[in-house]
Amino acid sequence: MSDAAGVVAIDLGGTKLAAALVDSHGTIGAKLKLPVEKESPLKSIQQICEVAARIAPSWEQVRAIGLAVPGIYFAETGNVWAPNLWGWDQVPLRDALASRVPVPVVIDSDRAAYVLGEQWLGAARGLSEVVFLAVGTGIGAGIITNGQLCRGAGGIAGAVGWFALDPRKKPIYKQTGCFEAEAAGPAVARRAGASTAEAVVEAARRNDQQACRVLEETAAWLAMGLANIVSILNPQMIVLGGGLMQAGDLLLEPLRREMFEWAQPLAARQVRIEMTQLGEDAGLLGAARLALLKGT
Amino acid sequence: MSDAAGVVAIDLGGTKLAAALVDSHGTIGAKLKLPVEKESPLKSIQQICEVAARIAPSWEQVRAIGLAVPGIYFAETGNVWAPNLWGWDQVPLRDALASRVPVPVVIDSDRAAYVLGEQWLGAARGLSEVVFLAVGTGIGAGIITNGQLCRGAGGIAGAVGWFALDPRKKPIYKQTGCFEAEAAGPAVARRAGASTAEAVVEAARRNDQQACRVLEETAAWLAMGLANIVSILNPQMIVLGGGLMQAGDLLLEPLRREMFEWAQPLAARQVRIEMTQLGEDAGLLGAARLALLKGT
Repeated sequence: MSDAAGVVAIDLGGTKLAAALVDSHGTIGAKLKLPVEKESPLKSIQQICEVAARIAPSWEQVRAIGLAVPGIYFAETGNVWAPNLWGWDQVPLRDALASRVPVPVVIDSDRAAYVLGEQWLGAARGLSEVVFLAVGTGIGAGIITNGQLCRGAGGIAGAVGWFALDPRKKPIYKQTGCFEAEAAGPAVARRAGASTAEAVVEAARRNDQQACRVLEETAAWLAMGLANIVSILNPQMIVLGGGLMQAGDLLLEPLRREMFEWAQPLAARQVRIEMTQLGEDAGLLGAARLALLKGT
Repeated sequence: MSDAAGVVAIDLGGTKLAAALVDSHGTIGAKLKLPVEKESPLKSIQQICEVAARIAPSWEQVRAIGLAVPGIYFAETGNVWAPNLWGWDQVPLRDALASRVPVPVVIDSDRAAYVLGEQWLGAARGLSEVVFLAVGTGIGAGIITNGQLCRGAGGIAGAVGWFALDPRKKPIYKQTGCFEAEAAGPAVARRAGASTAEAVVEAARRNDQQACRVLEETAAWLAMGLANIVSILNPQMIVLGGGLMQAGDLLLEPLRREMFEWAQPLAARQVRIEMTQLGEDAGLLGAARLALLKGT
């Protein structure tokens, strides 16, 4: 890598950690992918530091570390809430890292990283009104309005998995939010009586009728949530990502069609709905972008 | 009025027009309220010019005109779409006014003006993450994120009346949007078999059981829409206004309670839900703010 002012980008997921050296053009150099050590927050913090040190050719050549986390980042305190990793307690990640690495560390939520990555180098390149909708085990959105990340009052903006989409309340809605309960991966598996959403998507690819019906039903829910994003934010583009979206056209076509049934008609015509271009690198490149934007 | 650098603020509604001289502190001087002349766009344009000239002590003392319109303002073209006033055709309002008045004219949608007004001098003074939810004959929202108006790709952001809240589609949803069809004034009247929503609110104040039930049912819908705003934007405050909100505590209490049933729990705890403090002056003061911000 020729650019001396690169950053170390780390995408900390619920199970895997990806890390890479990224230059200011978004070129990904040395890259690592490992299972997250999540026995304790301290283990994860040590792992982050070790990985960063392995990735960095030397600290002099690293401007900053950008870190995307699977949860909520509280900018005032530097704490992270990532229940899939560390349970329900907040972890003072910023302070812990600041005392262990010799360069600035910039942290944000994974969904902020996804939308930043796609806006920088992916499907939404150069746009100023963009939403990234991640649909996997959970549902969340990264939002850019007026060209800026929208974090909300407490860093929780984009919690669209909690969209209310059906007045007939079910108990599960109080745990995960209504939209997530009806449209994320586990709902797909549940509806099909399958073990995973991936199995359902594969069956649908083989034209299994029940699997196709389940995906259609799920697309109808997803379209309601998408439409709500379109109506409130009038974005130029919504980028779709996350595990369930590997279903590709099986979901994309019905989604685009059904969204029109609900959204404000002018806004529905203005929005483009596209699949992620960066795929699993969206978080990594978004983390790099975070570091490049703030670590200067 | 002592401040020589005031603005003429005009709140053009679907039936009434309010206009006032407003100084840089938000003090309202001479004020007029008239029925809108809406036989044709030209009539309305002439009326706006006449009213501005009557309000202005002299054009030298007026920095700019701020105008809030009941519809969508397209900033690229300067056109306005206000179906309640002028039917479905766009009207080139900015150009028409620019050729007729000797000061700059700043135009935006009424919901943009409402949220700007409340953020400047009302319930949301000084906040950077604010939504104004207007519930009257229709439903719409004005949105401020990162301290800036959120207009979206085409000036339509905030069209929350189109929120999808029930998968059991009704034909009316395609005309007004699902949320508006279930929760705006006409829905209240329809449910109660009354001629107007005001009549229902009055009956509920007299403790009429059916009217109370209808308001409760409406509050349940409103809470779903509110919750969706809370979950996606994580605002510091949502300010409620519009005709139906004159029901006051009859709606506010159930709304606050029911919102918690749906919204992302942390975001639900962070948001304050308040009634408008500026009331019918919100649009006027917001229009003034538009002119003061841009007309300098």
